[in-house]
Amino acid sequence: MYVFNTASRQTDAVGALHHLPATPNTVHWGYFDASIKPALRVRSGDLIRAEAVTHHAGDDPDLLMDDGIREIFTKIPEEDRNPGVHIMTGPIFVEGARPGDMLEVRYLAMRPRLPYGSNLAANWGYLYKEFDERERVTIYRFDDATQQAEAVYAYDYPGKYLTPGKMFRCPECDRQSALPGARVPCRPHLGTAGVAPAVNGRVSTIPPGAHGGNIDNWRIGANARMYYPVAVDGALFSIGDPHISQGDGELSGTAIEASLDVLFQVIVRKDFQFPSPLLETPGEWIVHGFDEDLDLAMRGASLDMLGFLTEQRGLSRNDAYSLMSVAADFAVTQVVDGRQGVHVRMPRSVFPPER
Amino acid sequence: MYVFNTASRQTDAVGALHHLPATPNTVHWGYFDASIKPALRVRSGDLIRAEAVTHHAGDDPDLLMDDGIREIFTKIPEEDRNPGVHIMTGPIFVEGARPGDMLEVRYLAMRPRLPYGSNLAANWGYLYKEFDERERVTIYRFDDATQQAEAVYAYDYPGKYLTPGKMFRCPECDRQSALPGARVPCRPHLGTAGVAPAVNGRVSTIPPGAHGGNIDNWRIGANARMYYPVAVDGALFSIGDPHISQGDGELSGTAIEASLDVLFQVIVRKDFQFPSPLLETPGEWIVHGFDEDLDLAMRGASLDMLGFLTEQRGLSRNDAYSLMSVAADFAVTQVVDGRQGVHVRMPRSVFPPER
Repeated sequence: MYVFNTASRQTDAVGALHHLPATPNTVHWGYFDASIKPALRVRSGDLIRAEAVTHHAGDDPDLLMDDGIREIFTKIPEEDRNPGVHIMTGPIFVEGARPGDMLEVRYLAMRPRLPYGSNLAANWGYLYKEFDERERVTIYRFDDATQQAEAVYAYDYPGKYLTPGKMFRCPECDRQSALPGARVPCRPHLGTAGVAPAVNGRVSTIPPGAHGGNIDNWRIGANARMYYPVAVDGALFSIGDPHISQGDGELSGTAIEASLDVLFQVIVRKDFQFPSPLLETPGEWIVHGFDEDLDLAMRGASLDMLGFLTEQRGLSRNDAYSLMSVAADFAVTQVVDGRQGVHVRMPRSVFPPER
Repeated sequence: MYVFNTASRQTDAVGALHHLPATPNTVHWGYFDASIKPALRVRSGDLIRAEAVTHHAGDDPDLLMDDGIREIFTKIPEEDRNPGVHIMTGPIFVEGARPGDMLEVRYLAMRPRLPYGSNLAANWGYLYKEFDERERVTIYRFDDATQQAEAVYAYDYPGKYLTPGKMFRCPECDRQSALPGARVPCRPHLGTAGVAPAVNGRVSTIPPGAHGGNIDNWRIGANARMYYPVAVDGALFSIGDPHISQGDGELSGTAIEASLDVLFQVIVRKDFQFPSPLLETPGEWIVHGFDEDLDLAMRGASLDMLGFLTEQRGLSRNDAYSLMSVAADFAVTQVVDGRQGVHVRMPRSVFPPER
């Protein structure tokens, strides 16, 4: 009855392990581009240990940078960081991946590279006007033992935060205490990851879409599997925009932005298709809708979940609609001006055990 | 530092236990009204065991009605069920409650009265047009042992579902199988509950608001505490619209609508004020935004959480904004035409232990 189940998976075999460090030669800043020379070539089933570097490391270069990160910020000129903002590691060419396939990415582990991250109340944040159009940085420290973060200090950002990767050292005297006693539960995840769209030239990393991109769902962490529709030969998969935590909505415009080391496996799937990035966690199936308008993002997510339940799980349209009303949870993934995201989560326990 | 914590609670003392059955004399159908004679008078701290009856019991009168429910449907004339649709049990007059106070309602237990419920894909549902403007009922059975529900059968609703509490017995030959093998995790809760608004005459139960009403957050179940701003003397609290489950979004326009027996305690709180219904669960603080527009509902929820964190938890505005971005989850509570709901959940573990 069910088209999409674990038994139909082509392979659980693990291939070779590759290491992909983030260097000026293995990152592309602000864009996906199908014409970039691959930073790595792998086979379906291979494991990749890769570095994802935050483009917010300049918010406190002393705490958020090491030599490897600093080299990226100093060697890649500002004029080559566009049209988006995220530092993307890759692309990874996966042999055998063809347009029409799905690229399954099994995220296995995500660890902070340095124990610090930055949250920016940004000019693109949801309450920017309510905060008198001021921007502010709050630096957080990650505690590995508790998997919690606490604020270290905050400062008002001088000027407007427009150039990706600008470095600014806030003088000690301008640092303010922040969130005394508060501890944020950590959810290390990738804010942006995806395959190259079939487009000539650069595609901004900022708007999410069928290729993945800047989805900002904190559930894209260890133990999650993402399925991206492949658009070009080799898929050309890249990762970036690492976060140690954010809430659904990412209200201020950013998460706790912090570099992560990521271990994942890539698998080429030729046995099913899906029109948008599909997320599988141990407990849920999740689909995403994106639009400039929140209501239209909601509509997109609801129609894609309807498609998932009918095409991949064999339900009738009527059954799928009832099930979505009584069992699926809709949430606001992000609310940045011009790009709204809604996702919907269906518990896996609804369905009989997969054979 | 924190204004709002358990230590400041005036009392955990438990008063008398009252029983409030739902009868034609103790329910009001479709409205809140500050001029209704109370069905019960209690003191702060008292427990109430009350019956909440679903207005969808007519979708299968054999499975969803017993004698007590049938009496409500037969004795209350259709022309007295307006301007909303929900059967509300109450109101309960709480001695000492005054405008400006908060009514804390501790929901202690919610149990299905009968093991059946109805989900309607309604004319006010989100995908009504995508389903060719057809309405459909799916009857679910509740399994107490597993706390799951499974579909029993479904039928296309004849005509348009407009009159609250219409009884319809679908002939056996028109019943269709539904959702074979699927099991819905149950979340018994009240879709509608609240205090009487300070308004002359009837107020529809349909739009949620400061008084509570039709919030449709499935977290308003056992172990949750709601805080409602009191608007009239005695608060005049009523409950209705019981559900055994729904998802965030309540996509088809209804949940699994099923009568519940509810045990709760009411406590008059004079030590704090909050402008909208505030929800406390064992793990989270939750505030709600409502509007005709989803984006404005989102804005309302974000501003009320900002208010909660600054006024009730003592955070600065800047700190609260950063914390919301990195730790609070925004979700779509309901998406019915003309009334959109968004809520935001802040984990309690963020704050130091309450003293």
